[in-house]
Amino acid sequence: MAHVPQWVRDLKPSGPQGSEILAQERDGSAVNVEQLKTFLFGQEALQRKQKVLKVLQSEKVFEKSQDYFEGRTDKFERALARAKKLRQLTVKHGWNDTEQRAANDLISEPLPYGLHEGMYLKTLRDQGTPEQHEKYLKHAEAYQHIGCYAQTELGHGSNVRGLETTATWNSDDKTFTIHSPHLTASKWWIGSLGKMANHASVMAQLIIDGKSYGPHPFVVQIRDLKTHELLPNVYAGDIGPKFGYNTMDNGFLLFNHVKVPHVAMLARFSAVDPKTNRYLKPSSPTLVYGTLTWVRSTIVLQSGSVLARGVTIATRYLAVRRQFQDRDAPEWQLGENQTLNYTMVQIRLLPLLATCFALHFTGKGMMALYEANQKKMSQRSSKDQQELRGAGPEETQSGSDLLADLHGTSCGLKSLCSQTAAEGLEACRRAMGGHGYSAFSGVGHWFLDYVPTCTWEGDNYMLTQQVARYLLKSARSVLKGNEPNNDTTEILAHYLKRQDVGAAFDILGKDEDIVAAYAWRSAYFIFEALRQRDELKQSWNSLLVQFYKLSRAHSQYLVVKNFYETLQSPSISSELDPETLTLLHKLFRLYALHTLESESSEFFTSSACTVSQIRLARTKAVMQLLEEIRPHAIRLVDSWDFPDFQLNSSLGRYDGKVYEDMFYRASELNPLNRITVDPYPESATLFKKDESRNLKGKL
Amino acid sequence: MAHVPQWVRDLKPSGPQGSEILAQERDGSAVNVEQLKTFLFGQEALQRKQKVLKVLQSEKVFEKSQDYFEGRTDKFERALARAKKLRQLTVKHGWNDTEQRAANDLISEPLPYGLHEGMYLKTLRDQGTPEQHEKYLKHAEAYQHIGCYAQTELGHGSNVRGLETTATWNSDDKTFTIHSPHLTASKWWIGSLGKMANHASVMAQLIIDGKSYGPHPFVVQIRDLKTHELLPNVYAGDIGPKFGYNTMDNGFLLFNHVKVPHVAMLARFSAVDPKTNRYLKPSSPTLVYGTLTWVRSTIVLQSGSVLARGVTIATRYLAVRRQFQDRDAPEWQLGENQTLNYTMVQIRLLPLLATCFALHFTGKGMMALYEANQKKMSQRSSKDQQELRGAGPEETQSGSDLLADLHGTSCGLKSLCSQTAAEGLEACRRAMGGHGYSAFSGVGHWFLDYVPTCTWEGDNYMLTQQVARYLLKSARSVLKGNEPNNDTTEILAHYLKRQDVGAAFDILGKDEDIVAAYAWRSAYFIFEALRQRDELKQSWNSLLVQFYKLSRAHSQYLVVKNFYETLQSPSISSELDPETLTLLHKLFRLYALHTLESESSEFFTSSACTVSQIRLARTKAVMQLLEEIRPHAIRLVDSWDFPDFQLNSSLGRYDGKVYEDMFYRASELNPLNRITVDPYPESATLFKKDESRNLKGKL
Repeated sequence: MAHVPQWVRDLKPSGPQGSEILAQERDGSAVNVEQLKTFLFGQEALQRKQKVLKVLQSEKVFEKSQDYFEGRTDKFERALARAKKLRQLTVKHGWNDTEQRAANDLISEPLPYGLHEGMYLKTLRDQGTPEQHEKYLKHAEAYQHIGCYAQTELGHGSNVRGLETTATWNSDDKTFTIHSPHLTASKWWIGSLGKMANHASVMAQLIIDGKSYGPHPFVVQIRDLKTHELLPNVYAGDIGPKFGYNTMDNGFLLFNHVKVPHVAMLARFSAVDPKTNRYLKPSSPTLVYGTLTWVRSTIVLQSGSVLARGVTIATRYLAVRRQFQDRDAPEWQLGENQTLNYTMVQIRLLPLLATCFALHFTGKGMMALYEANQKKMSQRSSKDQQELRGAGPEETQSGSDLLADLHGTSCGLKSLCSQTAAEGLEACRRAMGGHGYSAFSGVGHWFLDYVPTCTWEGDNYMLTQQVARYLLKSARSVLKGNEPNNDTTEILAHYLKRQDVGAAFDILGKDEDIVAAYAWRSAYFIFEALRQRDELKQSWNSLLVQFYKLSRAHSQYLVVKNFYETLQSPSISSELDPETLTLLHKLFRLYALHTLESESSEFFTSSACTVSQIRLARTKAVMQLLEEIRPHAIRLVDSWDFPDFQLNSSLGRYDGKVYEDMFYRASELNPLNRITVDPYPESATLFKKDESRNLKGKL
Repeated sequence: MAHVPQWVRDLKPSGPQGSEILAQERDGSAVNVEQLKTFLFGQEALQRKQKVLKVLQSEKVFEKSQDYFEGRTDKFERALARAKKLRQLTVKHGWNDTEQRAANDLISEPLPYGLHEGMYLKTLRDQGTPEQHEKYLKHAEAYQHIGCYAQTELGHGSNVRGLETTATWNSDDKTFTIHSPHLTASKWWIGSLGKMANHASVMAQLIIDGKSYGPHPFVVQIRDLKTHELLPNVYAGDIGPKFGYNTMDNGFLLFNHVKVPHVAMLARFSAVDPKTNRYLKPSSPTLVYGTLTWVRSTIVLQSGSVLARGVTIATRYLAVRRQFQDRDAPEWQLGENQTLNYTMVQIRLLPLLATCFALHFTGKGMMALYEANQKKMSQRSSKDQQELRGAGPEETQSGSDLLADLHGTSCGLKSLCSQTAAEGLEACRRAMGGHGYSAFSGVGHWFLDYVPTCTWEGDNYMLTQQVARYLLKSARSVLKGNEPNNDTTEILAHYLKRQDVGAAFDILGKDEDIVAAYAWRSAYFIFEALRQRDELKQSWNSLLVQFYKLSRAHSQYLVVKNFYETLQSPSISSELDPETLTLLHKLFRLYALHTLESESSEFFTSSACTVSQIRLARTKAVMQLLEEIRPHAIRLVDSWDFPDFQLNSSLGRYDGKVYEDMFYRASELNPLNRITVDPYPESATLFKKDESRNLKGKL
């Protein structure tokens, strides 16, 4: 089978060739790809990517041709080899964090050191004392300790306060006993734990003298540093295959009365005083809290590129793919139509293309907000810090408005943006028809590896309660007559001023009115929810669905606003050609009007738009925008700058050689084609010949 | 690792136990599960399932414990073993088609004989002459020939007329030459072809004397009957891994001028006369056409059960899962709340539960329509048959109205129902939070194996053009003043009569008014689209998005109508207890009002409802229904009668032992836990110990 006959090798796809089509597409648009690329990511990041890419491509282990064929164990084995090599290269080339992240993006699969690097090191750094840095961090940074962050349990995910693992203080010998009282206390889903870690940062209920003080982090060794076997009274392993993310060894972990020394409790913010045996209160929970906000902001920042990867693949393939003639085409127009020319394909794909830009600019805005707040926070007086002490995010007072704003914004946007990216990827895959189902499309596995983002770092539905709490609090403040002190309170105050006059937004005529309509709809539903909670005294549980919609509405407003403001930046006309800038304006309108239409009932209900405006948006404006953006689709996706190495996709190849690549992978790379079956039901033999098993060694 | 320490074995989940919770749920509802089961499926089918289940469970090869761990080749090997065993059992027990289908449902994975049984045999039976039955069908039925149905190509899927493979008639030696002129002519996605088939029914462009007569089916042998090696000038293999469906050997196939005899062209409906070398026209394309309709009707019929499987798993798990306390709960109410009690979970899950019933009853309605039409068709005079000759479905005249109605209905419902089921499954998976990502949830792989249904047998988006064509034609007929002769023309005529009076539907008060509101919205958009096409002369391409929405609107009307009519059946009160029947009425309202709300902008625009009605539906009626249905959720899913064997799910276990099963599969069945890694980046060793490879033999 490995032998492909010459007559097969001589075959070409029927013309025109994919490469010709994409070349023509690129000729037909004046979008300045280099400029737009630089506008999106900056020169520095683009160069960094090229540098790292060159190194990775010279290493055989990063060659991806077998990735789609492997079972779980082989997949993990290869990922382990890659993780090791990547670490060696990082040391060799002296790569910093940003360069390492660039390499991870290019490799594009979760690697088994991921949680050691992402969470174990971070927890030690942020929450450890100098003594603990010496004892644990030093070894972890040298990869002598491989660690993980063991928080969620079989029985508890979102509800961290409900964790069952205990850490009981033994005042006699100044130790803690880490214990799993039930099966549901088993740590679960912990990345890098299943096979890799010899240490874990374990979140456990601190118990002193019979009293519980809530979850705290403890460093526990779980495997022997030499044999890598489990230590006595520790039981851990991999939790098994998953929907995606199978190159990661997500693990479980149980303890049977394991003693750890006093130093094991990470003590930067709270501790047990070994002399008095008393608990020392956390000095600033808001700092810890800031970590989660940072993680969520990063998710928002990445969502645009995550989606752009699927959109790039689908757009290129659907330009190359030709099917049917246009029904109304004149007779002289021979040949089949590019599928990207059908409006039903455009309406599924081009708004997603616009969404990539919307999410990307929102991510940048979110990061800027985060950094501005970090700066202000660190400038705050110690008096302010005192005020914060002991207060959770929902109860923070005026002194911490900034933090509350950042928290609400990051929760809402994390929920909306990750959801949008995940669902968009699946829409891209399905828009590609039959070939979208092939692993070689490169979109399926990318979706599967990404979709857990909807659930981790705060479940996308759960998070909307945090957003609602923040919005209701803002509305209460405005109703009390407090001066608006941020964007949220400003749009609420504006709404109150105008509510007896009503809205009159020219959504089809003016871009700023689109933003205003989104703000109006958000404010309307915030006050509506407030009325139900505060006046009608409806139960929290009965309002959850409304809270979800509220969070979505407000976050969509933020996305539209961020996109709009990016285009208003004074320097933009010096960075982009007029054609490219005009096109970005069209993408803004496409995102905003298409989203408005799909949420139209809320825009009606809040009287932010009329029925007639929505109908016009749907039947005229959006269709017109599709037509205007269509010729630039290929150049627009080129601007996202995904190397073929990263995409690992037959359908998304830059050169358009879609069919040749599909065929090559199926016929020559596919291990199943190295077996010959015995197809008859009565015979007990399954395989007459099997050369697939020794394939691994050969490649 | 295989050794689980005793202290781990002794652990139990923290209380209350899943089994206690589910028992309590079942005690708390009076739904008569046995009755409802029988109402849904009939006594006969339920007994058949139990009989077949018993046989399958006694065979080791059908034991599913390793299914989630395997790579592609192992997966396929196991599926092959199962396919053979199933065939042997079918022969041994003399199972008929229905029993075989029941077995396939229980095994729940695509088996490699699937397309031999589903399509090759059917094509030979339907399109072969008696001579061809003797030459091909006989051997195929005896599994000496294993066949496949080779239609789609690398370059062509939906557009069958564009296929590139040619079958050129050689008048000199009375043979056909089958040839693949380009790489894109390669047959692709063909089930049972990659490894299994030794014969293929190949769709190829018939060419006689330089003239093309369109695609026709030819039987071609492709592999040696003894060695199973490819025959000369044939190149075929497996197309590689896919998003799902990996137990099937979807294949590719190329021909290099392969000669086949005259008898190879399936000649029941059209043929080449070997004496005159002339083409003999098809006598009745509508019969062939009926096959596709039957396949689509089957998809509609199955969609309810397909979705119910995910809903069953999610409902049971979310009843067992407890997380957080209710914020407004009184202090004395200790412990965490069942996640199924949160309205945000209910709104995602319970409308899907209602949807299962809606789809199931619609599927039954669709099948009844199909059978009624088959009966009428066969009663038709030969004069009618003559009329049909040579006419495609879109141009059929009044004599074939029935067929057009059936075609439009089956296309629209196939598109809506498969989309709804696929998206619903993913919603179920995601509603389960973190554990939904585990393969052991049993929903992920089920979704992946099902989702191609959205694309095959007519892409869900493409199909809506067929529906629109049918609806526009119906509207033209009504406008001409023709008497309504079916439900579609009736609702259109009714709309015309009332359009100057407007609608006044009491959707919250009367069930029949809900149905009427759906009919009104559909009729409104049909006439709207007709105006744009016929009066404003808009291009077909510019209307595709509207056509899609139109098809969706009309199909949703059909679903609501079918559900409503099922509940109006005179015998129903003798079949179901009053409580159970009342609950079905509530499920009807939940499906109809929830769908209405999510499509509300179309109901506004068409003036079928007021803004205020929709708001009330959303904030009152739907929330009230969730509360009323919630206590019966477990019994309602029990009624779908899925044995644990079929579900193969930790989270969906009938007995609620969710955590025990997750833990057992992860710790004891998971091959990755039979390896010990070397975790340090500098060391070249990956695995210190690897006992996973010989696991296969052991199990």
